[in-house]
Amino acid sequence: MILKDGERLDDLQNGYKIIQNKNKFCFGIDAVLLADFANIKKNDKVIDFCSGTGIIPILLQSRSKGRKIYGVEIQEDCWEMADRSVKLNNLQDNINMLNLNIKEIKNYLKKNSFDAITCNPPYMINTHGLKNSNESIALARHEIECCFEDIASLSYEMLKEKGKLYLIHRPFRLAEIIATLKKYRLEPKLMQLVHPYIDKEPNLVLIEAVKNGNPRLKITPPLAVYEEDGNYTKRLREIYG
Amino acid sequence: MILKDGERLDDLQNGYKIIQNKNKFCFGIDAVLLADFANIKKNDKVIDFCSGTGIIPILLQSRSKGRKIYGVEIQEDCWEMADRSVKLNNLQDNINMLNLNIKEIKNYLKKNSFDAITCNPPYMINTHGLKNSNESIALARHEIECCFEDIASLSYEMLKEKGKLYLIHRPFRLAEIIATLKKYRLEPKLMQLVHPYIDKEPNLVLIEAVKNGNPRLKITPPLAVYEEDGNYTKRLREIYG
Repeated sequence: MILKDGERLDDLQNGYKIIQNKNKFCFGIDAVLLADFANIKKNDKVIDFCSGTGIIPILLQSRSKGRKIYGVEIQEDCWEMADRSVKLNNLQDNINMLNLNIKEIKNYLKKNSFDAITCNPPYMINTHGLKNSNESIALARHEIECCFEDIASLSYEMLKEKGKLYLIHRPFRLAEIIATLKKYRLEPKLMQLVHPYIDKEPNLVLIEAVKNGNPRLKITPPLAVYEEDGNYTKRLREIYG
Repeated sequence: MILKDGERLDDLQNGYKIIQNKNKFCFGIDAVLLADFANIKKNDKVIDFCSGTGIIPILLQSRSKGRKIYGVEIQEDCWEMADRSVKLNNLQDNINMLNLNIKEIKNYLKKNSFDAITCNPPYMINTHGLKNSNESIALARHEIECCFEDIASLSYEMLKEKGKLYLIHRPFRLAEIIATLKKYRLEPKLMQLVHPYIDKEPNLVLIEAVKNGNPRLKITPPLAVYEEDGNYTKRLREIYG
């Protein structure tokens, strides 16, 4: 395994490794939280939208979640790193990385056939704030190539009846996210707010939505990342394993 | 002041009293939380929908919130108690209790003219669970005479541009509430979840929505009602004054 210029090999401390490039987008706590939150069964067929360097599929596999996971990533260089990470971890039978815009996915995978979809999408609306001058980071952070409505609409098309969409996003967009999920008959069933400290505003929100589910939302107790002393909380240490 | 059969006079510990009837609906912590959460200015013109015994208008006045508050209550016996409480507290110049179905309000008050609306509505969908055999309690708890969509639609009609709707509800209905508010161009701008204990699921949610507001939701730190030892938290003691 030869790393390219600027790349590094990170040990995920779960038996797997991942190739990342510090000049592009490296995964953060949101990927770890989403992989933990997603209640995916061992034999589920899964798509991971906006898959980046493949962190979510690899984390799901490390937790024995999912039988076959398709990771979809639009950026060729990210996809290529993800594809090498999959091979490096000998996960070719379980993870299939596709270099596609998610809007093309219907041409490659069977509609109405997936048990679950995971998505850690770009958080920022295209016009939100300054875009990162590094195009790769801008695409990962801003809704340049796909917006939340695309994610909802495509999730509905790809999921089987009662299939589940798991996503993580920013709380400031929660109203739009919920309204859009309901518009596409993805009923929000479970929500978890993540607070840096228990007495601070949340900065992440996790949602499970069910295709054609019945309306009734369960909100979990608040999840805090850090104790007052700056160490991870007990729950976070469990999530990081 | 003569109390009727079954009625009692409760001291609100803020200079005001309220008449309630233990066989009908008595106010709870939700009314106190909503009156605190509602960011109503001294000179605002306000409607309180589903006003019951008038607790919200009286609490708002005790906090110098609002210049003129119209309380709308469909049940004649509740309205009559509220009207007597207003007189008992000498608040006739500031609070006007109306015995109406909120759907009739457009015939009595000027549309597009209110700075704020407060609402502590029936929490249960008409078909949710067993209805209370006491009709008065059933009307207060279940959406028999008005549903959440009516509240949103009438709030939009009565509020002035950028006017604010404040409501408290159950978290299990949050997805529907947000989608309905957005449908009626009442943009959710502030949300507070209320947890009985900090490590438990929330059982109440407070929302501020702005007529034709721009999309961007702020979620507050979680509000806990009780400390581990069963006493009120510091914040709750502040809210209760």
